[in-house]
Amino acid sequence: MDCIVSAPGKAILHGEHAVVHGKVALAVSLNLRTYLRLKVTTTGKVCVNLPNIDTFLSWDLSELKQLIPASCGKREEVKRLDAELVKRLREFVGVTNGNLDTCNMATLAFLYLYLSLFGSGEMPSLTVSVWSELPTGAGLGSSAAYSVCLAAALLCASGAIPSPLKEWDQTGRWCQEDLELINSWAFQGEMIIHGNPSGVDNAVGTWGGMLRFLAGKIIPLSRVPLLRILLTNTKIPRSTKVLVARVKDKINKFPSIMTPVLDSVDAISCSCERVLLEMTCEPITGEHYNILEELIDINQHHLNVMGVGHPALDTLCRVTMAQGLHSKLTGAGGGGCGITLLRPETDSSIVWRTMQDLQDCGFDCWETSIGGPGVQQHASLSVKEEVLEILNQF
Amino acid sequence: MDCIVSAPGKAILHGEHAVVHGKVALAVSLNLRTYLRLKVTTTGKVCVNLPNIDTFLSWDLSELKQLIPASCGKREEVKRLDAELVKRLREFVGVTNGNLDTCNMATLAFLYLYLSLFGSGEMPSLTVSVWSELPTGAGLGSSAAYSVCLAAALLCASGAIPSPLKEWDQTGRWCQEDLELINSWAFQGEMIIHGNPSGVDNAVGTWGGMLRFLAGKIIPLSRVPLLRILLTNTKIPRSTKVLVARVKDKINKFPSIMTPVLDSVDAISCSCERVLLEMTCEPITGEHYNILEELIDINQHHLNVMGVGHPALDTLCRVTMAQGLHSKLTGAGGGGCGITLLRPETDSSIVWRTMQDLQDCGFDCWETSIGGPGVQQHASLSVKEEVLEILNQF
Repeated sequence: MDCIVSAPGKAILHGEHAVVHGKVALAVSLNLRTYLRLKVTTTGKVCVNLPNIDTFLSWDLSELKQLIPASCGKREEVKRLDAELVKRLREFVGVTNGNLDTCNMATLAFLYLYLSLFGSGEMPSLTVSVWSELPTGAGLGSSAAYSVCLAAALLCASGAIPSPLKEWDQTGRWCQEDLELINSWAFQGEMIIHGNPSGVDNAVGTWGGMLRFLAGKIIPLSRVPLLRILLTNTKIPRSTKVLVARVKDKINKFPSIMTPVLDSVDAISCSCERVLLEMTCEPITGEHYNILEELIDINQHHLNVMGVGHPALDTLCRVTMAQGLHSKLTGAGGGGCGITLLRPETDSSIVWRTMQDLQDCGFDCWETSIGGPGVQQHASLSVKEEVLEILNQF
Repeated sequence: MDCIVSAPGKAILHGEHAVVHGKVALAVSLNLRTYLRLKVTTTGKVCVNLPNIDTFLSWDLSELKQLIPASCGKREEVKRLDAELVKRLREFVGVTNGNLDTCNMATLAFLYLYLSLFGSGEMPSLTVSVWSELPTGAGLGSSAAYSVCLAAALLCASGAIPSPLKEWDQTGRWCQEDLELINSWAFQGEMIIHGNPSGVDNAVGTWGGMLRFLAGKIIPLSRVPLLRILLTNTKIPRSTKVLVARVKDKINKFPSIMTPVLDSVDAISCSCERVLLEMTCEPITGEHYNILEELIDINQHHLNVMGVGHPALDTLCRVTMAQGLHSKLTGAGGGGCGITLLRPETDSSIVWRTMQDLQDCGFDCWETSIGGPGVQQHASLSVKEEVLEILNQF
């Protein structure tokens, strides 16, 4: 058996920071994807290849069998982590000391899902290879895309869910029930990697499109249009924790000034959701895009008011505005990433020039889209050649 | 008799545009002043010299006597314009066709006040010379400063109010009652020049300091600290009417998003007023200035949200921020003028470099202050030499 799956990254379209204070946020799938190839082998080994982070691991099945959890097989109970198994895996991988780097976290998440799903039956020897278009640690849900891919491929290999790929299809999507199983296992992966994740990132990776996040509740939205964007990584490092604390301090310092700003951000998210819904029900017009652009500009000003802007983000806005394009930060801010909306009629020469200008500022920049599909299985032919080449190395 | 008076310009510290929608605005005196010298002569002529706008006029008293209003002498009734007199003056000056340039408006205002105050008694021959440090048409209350100076000097010359200058004083201020008389006549000048003025500009020119403007009511605030600022004129022309309409359209288009922004601006004005009051009651600290700077930054973002920003104003903010200084637009926006707060400890070398940088952008820039005194009479020695030189030419 040989199976290729992919899952998208995540961007916050509106409502970052405000969501911490009880307001609506809109999370969207980002069509920079993580691809995973699972090959069942006869080597008696389990191999994991993560070329993005120079990680290439291999274990004998006999080694892994010793880690099998006692209470294995209850695949439905996937709401809480098996703390005993996590502890044993941390010892096995050697991260008891808190050496929580990306490589160790990715390894732990893989082993946890592999052993949980196969520990009660025959453990297959297999090779898992992953390649991601997403930068890691940039707030774009790269760990969730990885966890979603792992969950989908391993659940499929274990027979818990069927392969959704029909004979002549390029790609296949799972049914709602299967997606829920994938999402709950991906959430376990996220818990191992992040400790206390919101669940938004894995939900976006699973369902794609857009979802509404309010007071801890995640509601996937049925239909959204696919929007062309530029994604820019300013590469300015920042701490989400520090930025969240900064916003909280500012609200405490100026409650009468800041509370209305949060209300305005809430209204921006609701207005955006309404416009995107309209765009799926009626002919898309320039005015729809005008409104989306205005909402982006207003929210970017509000994020500056909250104190999570950065000169590099101001530069992003100015450079793109010089080409008539509208940008805002996405996620924590204080540097990090920004999104720039492209209109359907935006000429490729404009896009090219804008990307050049942004790269000249020292930024990384991708042309991609938001609102695309969640996790899916691919026929080999539907995977970009450069990605397939990497996955086929192993 | 020879009398020199001066009146300050006006800047909006916070609340521009929001005031149109029932929110508080704070108007402050701007210590770029208009100076007026009134000399009683024996030439039988009335001369007006306005070198800023290349206007030099002279009439025989006999000409002006023919314009005396029938109902003259009721000096207390200064709430409404004498429409009959205005009509006659417009014919005399030749502006019946709507040729409303600065020169004609200044002439009309002078003649209206002169004839209203002297028409019932002996008409003195005199020479009035005016020099202003304020740019005209930049929303800085230059016409009001002119009207206030005219009212004060002519009321003083007519004997309606006394000279407040004591023998050894450099400057003198009138008592509250006299200021009210000056303000009401200055308002008449403003009505002639502007048609339907708010009364804020002449009130600031008369009382100086700061005043609170809410729903058409003007409340002078007793004590405010003098704040060092840079005033920058981007020289980008704009129409206040168009900008006010733009904000209104945006509120109508996005009521749930824009209404909270106006509330936030209202809270900024109230917070600023509170901090300025504190600064007059307790030792001024760095934290007071930190808050004033934060309020400036937040309001500038809100004004951008309202759609009254301009790339030139973004440049102003960026150039001053590079020196650690905080700026916002003042008045209508869309270009026009901006203010930059200077801290007491801001080094003159920083100020100098910032002004150089702003001039390199093509802007005009002045180091001045806000919150200074309103209309005052000067001993010659208290007037800057370069201003005195200009006024003494005539």
